[in-house]
Amino acid sequence: MNNSNSPVHKPKMQLSQKVCSIPEALSVYINNVVYEMKRRGEELCVLSLGEAFFDIPMFSFDDIDFKKGYHYSESRGLYELRHILSKYYNNRYNASIDPDSDLIISAGSKPLIYMAFQAVLNAGDEVLIHEPAWLSYPEEIKLAEGVPVFIPFDCGVDSIEKYITNKTKMIVICNPNNPAGKVYSRNELEFLYKLCRPRGIYILVDEAYSDFLDNDLFCSMTSIVPDKDGIIVVNSLSKNMGISGWRIGYAISSDDVIYNMLKLNQHLITCPSTLLLLYISKHFDEMLDITLPQAQEVVRKRETINQYCKSIGLIPLDGTSTFYLFINIADYKYSSLDLALYLLTKYHISVVPGLAYGNSTERFIRISVGTENIDDIKRSLDLIKQIIMNDEIDKNYINDTLTELKMNHFSSDCQHMDGN
Amino acid sequence: MNNSNSPVHKPKMQLSQKVCSIPEALSVYINNVVYEMKRRGEELCVLSLGEAFFDIPMFSFDDIDFKKGYHYSESRGLYELRHILSKYYNNRYNASIDPDSDLIISAGSKPLIYMAFQAVLNAGDEVLIHEPAWLSYPEEIKLAEGVPVFIPFDCGVDSIEKYITNKTKMIVICNPNNPAGKVYSRNELEFLYKLCRPRGIYILVDEAYSDFLDNDLFCSMTSIVPDKDGIIVVNSLSKNMGISGWRIGYAISSDDVIYNMLKLNQHLITCPSTLLLLYISKHFDEMLDITLPQAQEVVRKRETINQYCKSIGLIPLDGTSTFYLFINIADYKYSSLDLALYLLTKYHISVVPGLAYGNSTERFIRISVGTENIDDIKRSLDLIKQIIMNDEIDKNYINDTLTELKMNHFSSDCQHMDGN
Repeated sequence: MNNSNSPVHKPKMQLSQKVCSIPEALSVYINNVVYEMKRRGEELCVLSLGEAFFDIPMFSFDDIDFKKGYHYSESRGLYELRHILSKYYNNRYNASIDPDSDLIISAGSKPLIYMAFQAVLNAGDEVLIHEPAWLSYPEEIKLAEGVPVFIPFDCGVDSIEKYITNKTKMIVICNPNNPAGKVYSRNELEFLYKLCRPRGIYILVDEAYSDFLDNDLFCSMTSIVPDKDGIIVVNSLSKNMGISGWRIGYAISSDDVIYNMLKLNQHLITCPSTLLLLYISKHFDEMLDITLPQAQEVVRKRETINQYCKSIGLIPLDGTSTFYLFINIADYKYSSLDLALYLLTKYHISVVPGLAYGNSTERFIRISVGTENIDDIKRSLDLIKQIIMNDEIDKNYINDTLTELKMNHFSSDCQHMDGN
Repeated sequence: MNNSNSPVHKPKMQLSQKVCSIPEALSVYINNVVYEMKRRGEELCVLSLGEAFFDIPMFSFDDIDFKKGYHYSESRGLYELRHILSKYYNNRYNASIDPDSDLIISAGSKPLIYMAFQAVLNAGDEVLIHEPAWLSYPEEIKLAEGVPVFIPFDCGVDSIEKYITNKTKMIVICNPNNPAGKVYSRNELEFLYKLCRPRGIYILVDEAYSDFLDNDLFCSMTSIVPDKDGIIVVNSLSKNMGISGWRIGYAISSDDVIYNMLKLNQHLITCPSTLLLLYISKHFDEMLDITLPQAQEVVRKRETINQYCKSIGLIPLDGTSTFYLFINIADYKYSSLDLALYLLTKYHISVVPGLAYGNSTERFIRISVGTENIDDIKRSLDLIKQIIMNDEIDKNYINDTLTELKMNHFSSDCQHMDGN
């Protein structure tokens, strides 16, 4: 076997046009800058992380089969944990979930939401997204050949109907909502189901923040549609239990949707880390006893900060849940991305620009109260207020700092990449 | 807000036609039956697992920041581990890999190979797959809107050119090959690169079994193309280090391909389990010292079984690596799926049917020598030989047993699903 020894001709290799046009996940980009600054020993006030820091002890690995953890586990999800989770939803929300057919566990809600889109969408199907919305929904929808259609943040549930066309196949809501903290009422959810189900429109509800409430007002979609017909609920242990780095999420739906997701999971993921599934199966109740009160505590902290914002003239969107505040920056002259990068590089305060959360949300920033103490957050808010009032910016400083950190400037197009 | 109180009209919800036509991963399906039988306390001879069982102690968690493990880590991959892996490839294969631009870590090679397809394919692009080939390649290609084109197992590298059209965008090889154990020579890899690069065709090399050799003959694609221009190499810690359940893999390519994969990783995965990334970063060398000799030992075991097969008239495809044998069952009257299900339900021996590995491979079964001892494997092979010679089958027994186990009968179409 031989082909010529002359130099190999190398025309430019071509990439996927679709993926080139996908922007980086903006929140991830901001946090990658944060990691890089921290790695260099800099001190930051981190208000950008999609995480609340809980105080969770390390439980024993002694009663866990460590060797079993080295190996694959069921692609539908570890048997024990599926039963624990279904029981948890059954007890808590009076839902009826068969752990052998209506539930699947995978490596976090990101891949699960993507697999849910893939499981039901055909090319060209439209998916309504109620803003403000988590930034990966539209990109995941496009990767699944669907068409994201944004519903502005100031459109109420009772006005959604006008966005429905004969191509609408699904609507996505995040309840409680990241980043606004809005909790959809039982009334709103029932209204939505009666609107969507007769039209064959799936409702995907991302319930990742379901434990972040200081009252009983949260209503899971599973308690409204016990047979899960036409609904897909995604949840995770990440946010609620403060273990986002463990990458374990689950989805609940009718058996035919779950079966499609199971096949996708077999081809794309296999399973989350078996070792951590075993650990959680063993320590689920203990962990929950520790994390649930902490989640409620974070919500009270959120409300304290919410009141403080209003007192200094920073106005967050209405909400009572999660550990985020979505703050209006309409008075600021520059973009929310400019503000975020300026705060980060100059003042070492990290926030996520509103443009990450939809078409109607550019005039906002998201701050998370999950990681820093109240005094530091208040000081940062004072500074943010001042910068907005003075229209303060220094774009050269931003660029120079990013270059020094060897970070590319955020861009929505890989053609403009100017670093790694 | 209110809509009618009359019963909700419920037309049948529609699913993705593409995903309905995707079969379950056949190897995963077989192993799910295995898990279910084991859960019921049955004894099996497991020759179906894509894993070799190593003897690896649990190292200490004491010098690991357990709390850091609760949180997200960099979407490009934990800094320390990226540097360890790039150094490993650099040292071992004389490859030059910049850990900050040419490498990404994610939750196993499954999602990484999928993201590689997504990163470069446009709708309708053809991807050549050299059989026998891992069963998720074609399904992942279809999900990325590509068109899989199979090259039969008996077609040599020097005859691949005739499968190339003006739509060919990529070729996938698994080196060393799962399931045949074939190791592509340096000569073959160079030939392939000179064939593909001038035509703008990417070569994706799945090197998941790179440590399973009893000699120095393995040549990584990264050592042939130091600038990684037009190649994508995927590897994992799963197979080589016997920790498939931990779900950690990595991909190496040019910076533009890795950047596209990074964006996909941010939207679809985020990161593998941070805790396990920290653990491996700490104990990488110790683990490798333990697992590398065990991988070589498994290869010697494979050769023993290979010789035994031939001595009883079972003929595997030529190969010197991995822990699999891909055995010809041309003499058997029924399908490889029938044989596999019959062996499993009646004799509690699990193997994977050849049809999982391509269009030209139905007349084979894959056995793994990674999990059982030599005597048990030999006994199973004797039985398999006998069943083939006698054309033994009992389809009712298969169906009854699957029904009793509450497992659906494997089918390539969700319309035919008859259980969960």
